[in-house]
Amino acid sequence: MRIAIDAMGGDNAPFEIVKGAVLAARELDDEIILVGGEPVLRAELARYEADKPLPNISIVHASEVIGGDEHPVQAVRHKKDSSVVVAADLVRDGKADALISAGNTGALMASALFHIGRIEGVERPAIVAPIPNLGGEGFSLLVDAGANAECRPSHLECFAKMGSVYMKRAYGVSSPRIGLINNGTEEGKGGALQKETYELLKVSGLNFIGNVEARDIPKGAADVLVCDGFTGNIILKLIEGTTWSLLKQIKNVMKKNPKTMLGGAMLKGDIQELRDQFDYSKYGGSPILGVKGLVIKIHGSSNCNTVSTAVIRAASMSEYDMVSEIEGALRSEDELSVES
Amino acid sequence: MRIAIDAMGGDNAPFEIVKGAVLAARELDDEIILVGGEPVLRAELARYEADKPLPNISIVHASEVIGGDEHPVQAVRHKKDSSVVVAADLVRDGKADALISAGNTGALMASALFHIGRIEGVERPAIVAPIPNLGGEGFSLLVDAGANAECRPSHLECFAKMGSVYMKRAYGVSSPRIGLINNGTEEGKGGALQKETYELLKVSGLNFIGNVEARDIPKGAADVLVCDGFTGNIILKLIEGTTWSLLKQIKNVMKKNPKTMLGGAMLKGDIQELRDQFDYSKYGGSPILGVKGLVIKIHGSSNCNTVSTAVIRAASMSEYDMVSEIEGALRSEDELSVES
Repeated sequence: MRIAIDAMGGDNAPFEIVKGAVLAARELDDEIILVGGEPVLRAELARYEADKPLPNISIVHASEVIGGDEHPVQAVRHKKDSSVVVAADLVRDGKADALISAGNTGALMASALFHIGRIEGVERPAIVAPIPNLGGEGFSLLVDAGANAECRPSHLECFAKMGSVYMKRAYGVSSPRIGLINNGTEEGKGGALQKETYELLKVSGLNFIGNVEARDIPKGAADVLVCDGFTGNIILKLIEGTTWSLLKQIKNVMKKNPKTMLGGAMLKGDIQELRDQFDYSKYGGSPILGVKGLVIKIHGSSNCNTVSTAVIRAASMSEYDMVSEIEGALRSEDELSVES
Repeated sequence: MRIAIDAMGGDNAPFEIVKGAVLAARELDDEIILVGGEPVLRAELARYEADKPLPNISIVHASEVIGGDEHPVQAVRHKKDSSVVVAADLVRDGKADALISAGNTGALMASALFHIGRIEGVERPAIVAPIPNLGGEGFSLLVDAGANAECRPSHLECFAKMGSVYMKRAYGVSSPRIGLINNGTEEGKGGALQKETYELLKVSGLNFIGNVEARDIPKGAADVLVCDGFTGNIILKLIEGTTWSLLKQIKNVMKKNPKTMLGGAMLKGDIQELRDQFDYSKYGGSPILGVKGLVIKIHGSSNCNTVSTAVIRAASMSEYDMVSEIEGALRSEDELSVES
């Protein structure tokens, strides 16, 4: 596996990105390609190579950087020598198998779409986000987590198929349970989008378990949760906002008076474990499914550990050809349609 | 104020409903009308009247009950002598000013629509739900909380106007901040529904503060949060599911071992206060806005305190004519449109 990393993207680039690449390179035989300003990357790498050489890390120069607040499509169009675009071109040209970036999400999406291209049969690539199950060890994958605000039923059907393949290959779940996010569990619930998607998923050949209400999302009601990107955005950010607000209040309670401070001290380690459930970095990032390559978005504030986990997760998928598998999953549907 | 109560609706009907009516009647001069099976209601009331007479409670007989799992529209059409329909007819005929029910939400909505009727200018009535601000004393009103899965921009504009009037009159907020639920804070975010609604709200004369991201909902980012009913349903149930799961985990932590049990005991009262933030009963229920009368849904599992709070809240609004105020708010918009 050859993994290209956008070394200039994200709040902590390039320092934490390079450090993460080094951590992963020390564990893996796979090839890591750092894409960005060569002088600064060379200097950073040198610090680590002083200890021990890093034969599996190489650098590909890119003279430009796309900032977090730039307009994604315009930036990708004009900054052809930006780190994210150059890294995407490595995947397009078969010089890398995967691309990881902590930079501007829209620019990563646009680079993937315009420079790597969509898988045949995919109308809309989607972003996947892991959602921890509160109170358990597991997690669910949310597709689409925000790339497509407006969707048609065929888009959601495709998200379900791509999500199922990814859950299988990236996390080893043999027959992922697919749930449709809806405003009630009964068949026939929701608007036209949900009703029509339900019909498509019923005959999709997937392990479709029906509608999932929002209150059951944190309980791990399904392995893959399918929805339009507007709803996905609301779900992701509301879980984040609600847990953050609640944990902050609990922290405040523990500082209230000597008694609660003592009680808090006795619970501190366990409450910290609770917080750690929301450490999204352990999942290895959010793939953009539907493009011709493994493209993974990691959080803008990613540190070296997040980068390293994402690289190691990507490398673990080298035995699978995700693109072919997704093509296959979509094709078998077409064949089914022809037969029926 | 004359307040009709569907005494047969909800999990704890008629016992808790009657008890709640009695609690409210002891505090108020307003007239309370219990609607349902007269013999059982008479017998229940007699238990309380043994202590002290209740001159401001009367009973109107209704021979039928609509169950929680019945099809709302069909049930309302066929059970013309059901408690919720008879209570709605009291409002329609000017014999009651308000209607409170813990029964089948769809049936309450259908009774309100078909028997009481929409306010002129309202295309779609909406359900309002209070959302507690985690970490503060305040709360926001979510409109629409689930009545209309699919909406047009004009519907959302109307929800905003009705929500603004209700926040003013029911809770005394002088210039409610109106926020549009969206997938980002910047203008131009969202799908066609959000983009067009944004334009309408900008010139609505309301105190429109722009888009609100889901992560800011629990922080009380706006007094009135406007969205379609599908999104509203997701928001309400996801806050419920996330907080429930988290608090359950914290409870489990506190039972883990002698040390955490001791720590838990020291924090118990304060954690309970946290839980109490989610006691929705204190807000006095969820009004259905846009019908010609004050129609209030309370939770199916409501106990006597919830019923009593809802009755007292409704009575406190007697000095305002919500229907006229909403008509006025919608009319001023029409005038504005004509001028411009």
